[in-house]
Amino acid sequence: MKNRIITISREFGSGGRTIGKKVAEELKIPCYDSELIGKIAKESGFNTEYIKECDEYGSGGYLSFLSNRAFGLNNEDYLWNVQCKIITEIAEKESCVIVGRCADYILRETADCLKVFIHADMAFRAARIVNVYGERAQSPEQRIKDKDKRRAAYHRFYTNMKWGRAQNYDLTLNSGTLGIDACVKIVKELY
Amino acid sequence: MKNRIITISREFGSGGRTIGKKVAEELKIPCYDSELIGKIAKESGFNTEYIKECDEYGSGGYLSFLSNRAFGLNNEDYLWNVQCKIITEIAEKESCVIVGRCADYILRETADCLKVFIHADMAFRAARIVNVYGERAQSPEQRIKDKDKRRAAYHRFYTNMKWGRAQNYDLTLNSGTLGIDACVKIVKELY
Repeated sequence: MKNRIITISREFGSGGRTIGKKVAEELKIPCYDSELIGKIAKESGFNTEYIKECDEYGSGGYLSFLSNRAFGLNNEDYLWNVQCKIITEIAEKESCVIVGRCADYILRETADCLKVFIHADMAFRAARIVNVYGERAQSPEQRIKDKDKRRAAYHRFYTNMKWGRAQNYDLTLNSGTLGIDACVKIVKELY
Repeated sequence: MKNRIITISREFGSGGRTIGKKVAEELKIPCYDSELIGKIAKESGFNTEYIKECDEYGSGGYLSFLSNRAFGLNNEDYLWNVQCKIITEIAEKESCVIVGRCADYILRETADCLKVFIHADMAFRAARIVNVYGERAQSPEQRIKDKDKRRAAYHRFYTNMKWGRAQNYDLTLNSGTLGIDACVKIVKELY
């Protein structure tokens, strides 16, 4: 039988990562999130700091992955290929939760996925990121807008699918109105 | 305490109406769907056939509601106003399920709503509409594309919101991959 994978895409600050971790804990399966960065680092030879900075958001501004291709693949393309390979291998190995990194798209034809998208309104997310990540010079609203813009552009570039379009997922949840715990419960039940 | 309303938007053929009816049955609250047409007919003076044809999809082709405004409100605008009034009155009167008709938007500031969107892939919906509504001269795929286009355009025109964008709902569900019964269960639990 195929492994069963839960992929979680999420707006920044919506609690998608927390939901993924809790679901995985309760189902007693692994959750891949920051673990992926270590694996990508090991496979690619880049250091983890560079990957964190570069991967998913683009390194030099959120449109960097649209340029620098005059001589073929750029660093982001190379990391994308490594990421595809690692995510595919993980899905072949075991049932698990994978947070972010376009796993839903990467696994679209090879794995049995429950594709989830988590979002919430700006006020909920702004309060949450200050709580979880602390204050920064930039306002929480601006940080959220920046990150979402990068994620959407990155996602669109590599998948040619619109980020946040309900039809791309099995399930989308507003963690702000439903609450993190209710989201965990629903995802777990559908697994 | 405010009444609690479940609004269900849905792609044509996704089973959104069936899900709404089953949820309402199990929660023992009314479900407004075709009942709304009768109420709108009574209030507006138009006959039900005309409203079915005109309302939600536009009467003379799906862009008719974008024209005919040289002399002020056209029939669609008038029906929209009646619809807003009736849906607001229903929500004030009792807890219920309302299927379609932009109820989520109409009630956005006045009611305690659980906003749901149901969708499914083309193959699931094509099989389902032949099963539920029978064969027509037009292929099921073409019928679905037509209806969805009309619903999206109508929704966009009156609400200025993008139909099917996850962020507009508390919950979106793929009835094709999750199954109608699982959708009923989730919506009921979240109520």
